[in-house]
Amino acid sequence: MSVITLLTDFGVQDEYAGVMKGVILSVHPAAVIVDISHQIEPQDIVQAACMLRASWPYFPAGTVHVTVVDPGVGGKRDILAAQYKGHFFLAPDNGILSLTAEDGDFDSLIRVENTKYFRDTVSRTFHGRDIFAPAAAHLAMGVKLEKFGTRMDFRQIKQIASEKPFVSEKVEIIGKIICTDRFGNLISNIGENLLSQSGDTRKLEIQIGACKIRGLSESYDSTPAGQPLAIIGSRGLLEISVNCGHAGQYFGVEKRAPVRIHLPTST
Amino acid sequence: MSVITLLTDFGVQDEYAGVMKGVILSVHPAAVIVDISHQIEPQDIVQAACMLRASWPYFPAGTVHVTVVDPGVGGKRDILAAQYKGHFFLAPDNGILSLTAEDGDFDSLIRVENTKYFRDTVSRTFHGRDIFAPAAAHLAMGVKLEKFGTRMDFRQIKQIASEKPFVSEKVEIIGKIICTDRFGNLISNIGENLLSQSGDTRKLEIQIGACKIRGLSESYDSTPAGQPLAIIGSRGLLEISVNCGHAGQYFGVEKRAPVRIHLPTST
Amino acid sequence: MSVITLLTDFGVQDEYAGVMKGVILSVHPAAVIVDISHQIEPQDIVQAACMLRASWPYFPAGTVHVTVVDPGVGGKRDILAAQYKGHFFLAPDNGILSLTAEDGDFDSLIRVENTKYFRDTVSRTFHGRDIFAPAAAHLAMGVKLEKFGTRMDFRQIKQIASEKPFVSEKVEIIGKIICTDRFGNLISNIGENLLSQSGDTRKLEIQIGACKIRGLSESYDSTPAGQPLAIIGSRGLLEISVNCGHAGQYFGVEKRAPVRIHLPTST
Repeated sequence: MSVITLLTDFGVQDEYAGVMKGVILSVHPAAVIVDISHQIEPQDIVQAACMLRASWPYFPAGTVHVTVVDPGVGGKRDILAAQYKGHFFLAPDNGILSLTAEDGDFDSLIRVENTKYFRDTVSRTFHGRDIFAPAAAHLAMGVKLEKFGTRMDFRQIKQIASEKPFVSEKVEIIGKIICTDRFGNLISNIGENLLSQSGDTRKLEIQIGACKIRGLSESYDSTPAGQPLAIIGSRGLLEISVNCGHAGQYFGVEKRAPVRIHLPTST
Repeated sequence: MSVITLLTDFGVQDEYAGVMKGVILSVHPAAVIVDISHQIEPQDIVQAACMLRASWPYFPAGTVHVTVVDPGVGGKRDILAAQYKGHFFLAPDNGILSLTAEDGDFDSLIRVENTKYFRDTVSRTFHGRDIFAPAAAHLAMGVKLEKFGTRMDFRQIKQIASEKPFVSEKVEIIGKIICTDRFGNLISNIGENLLSQSGDTRKLEIQIGACKIRGLSESYDSTPAGQPLAIIGSRGLLEISVNCGHAGQYFGVEKRAPVRIHLPTST
Repeated sequence: MSVITLLTDFGVQDEYAGVMKGVILSVHPAAVIVDISHQIEPQDIVQAACMLRASWPYFPAGTVHVTVVDPGVGGKRDILAAQYKGHFFLAPDNGILSLTAEDGDFDSLIRVENTKYFRDTVSRTFHGRDIFAPAAAHLAMGVKLEKFGTRMDFRQIKQIASEKPFVSEKVEIIGKIICTDRFGNLISNIGENLLSQSGDTRKLEIQIGACKIRGLSESYDSTPAGQPLAIIGSRGLLEISVNCGHAGQYFGVEKRAPVRIHLPTST
């Protein structure tokens, strides 16, 4: 078995994701293709990087994860192929892969250059079809990573460094909202580990918009319906939620809004 | 072959449905996964129950149908596994399964409790990933239903009883609109059987909003374009439609609007 | 392996596409089903025809391409099955297949009539489930095209003739916008071949709305961010785009807007 996941900003209206699947199946008929999402907001590289980090660990080893959010398509940006903990990754070099490995570096990192694994004709508008899809199919068939191009150092690739929360003198953590999910949960960039290192999580004070929430909840229904809460969500990140409601509308905040956490030791 | 269907309110924007598929394929690499819909309106249990009833009979015997619309996730609600006519069903005990079996009861019904078939770590926010996905994969691999937990009686589970139409002295049927589909068809909770038992369907008078429609049509184009009609739709339920139009906008009605039918014997 | 693609206006909210997959897998458990799109605007036959033409060549030979945009369902329109360059096509006879074959005609064309390959019960509202899905499954299993019905001549089927651009005395090409994709690219009906036959593409003058664009660009980032450009897009058609922007909003034009090209020989 070989699984290929697709994560793009192509949407579900147009034929673009379907065409990628046609190319993959033409090269590798036994591939099992899974959509992570095609609804990344157009060209939102940060959202793509976060969603890739949130999804790849749940797939079987050997899976090839293809992320195509690529405003620089047809220009000079590189295409990267990486290996990490038995998984493979393909993405443009625009920061998408900079959050993938927990400890920073990959086990192997390649600049994709070998046209043998591309479609015969490569357009300058749709590398998803012409490069990513056939390269992913060949990777999933077992072609060695080294065959795709030249080795790179992790420090050479584009980073999304600003996406890490700022810890101020162990008194405050300042993070931000990365995205709002379909349920209206406001997903922050503040990880579970960072919070648990900061003392008793029942005593945290979380400020979002003009409101303050005290302590982390264990489940959505631990407050009455319609009431806000803070919780470690399924991505392992701090989320601001409203039980049976929509936190984005409740707080009137959107992507990139700041989240401030006063740590228990500060009171 | 083993087919697993997914019906959720997770949407197609976030990674949640994709992550469930990763977990399923990690347990059962040969599973064939089919999306019914991930666009159930958040936490709309009635819509999920109706859509499950409308879709499962078209799949091959042995299919595992997973429905996750679960506002009580992480709280005290049970998770159910059921067998009926050779199909398997997994859903929270919140009413979703109460419309599945035509004659009410299942062939077998279990409270899912055996953590052996869960992920090693179970969060309190995403049981779709941590319980439903691995349990479905094991069911599809042939693990016996009884292995998942303790036997239950159908009368113990939550019901959505109010969703059945009311028949008033064989003079009138009072139902309601369950949902509006993408074409704007208003789908009611009034079944084909109930209507055909009520006499000559050409003489029915159907009241929706301020309008009356006389008789059932055989196909959408049996009225001129832009004209309303009543028809037995693909779910076997009475639908109010507009030929080449949008009945929801035409009538200005929405989900839960009443539909009244004057039966022929009453005139 | 046998691939079946689905292209419909069923949307992703309702169970309709999922039910088609259930019927296909009931007939042909090994079928690999790929969604092209279910988001064709309801009953937009032109958009469906263009998207089918843009996607089918990227799939492996032997693929069965099912297109169901079918306002005449249950009425008198025929259902067509065709073979072309080793691919198979199923669609209602309403113009969808009239753009599929580059040189006009198919290798084989059949009116689908043999109820042996339908579901036992055929509704008048959902032929996608009752006719297209089981017929596609049988085609993918290797049933010969001739078994499905009687042979037809290509000149008998419905055409979408008006979708070809008009060339005025080699001075001007007059085309139109077929659709806007998720990125806001305005996709025209003017093909790469027509433009390249018309002289130096750097000297073309393209008029859209009140604006003029001179020459074709090679990639989206060949103009500054926020600036418009004209480019041959991934469908091999002229597209009007805005680098990192939304051309549909930039120009304030929509589907069916005219595009005029002054050819270099005219200046």
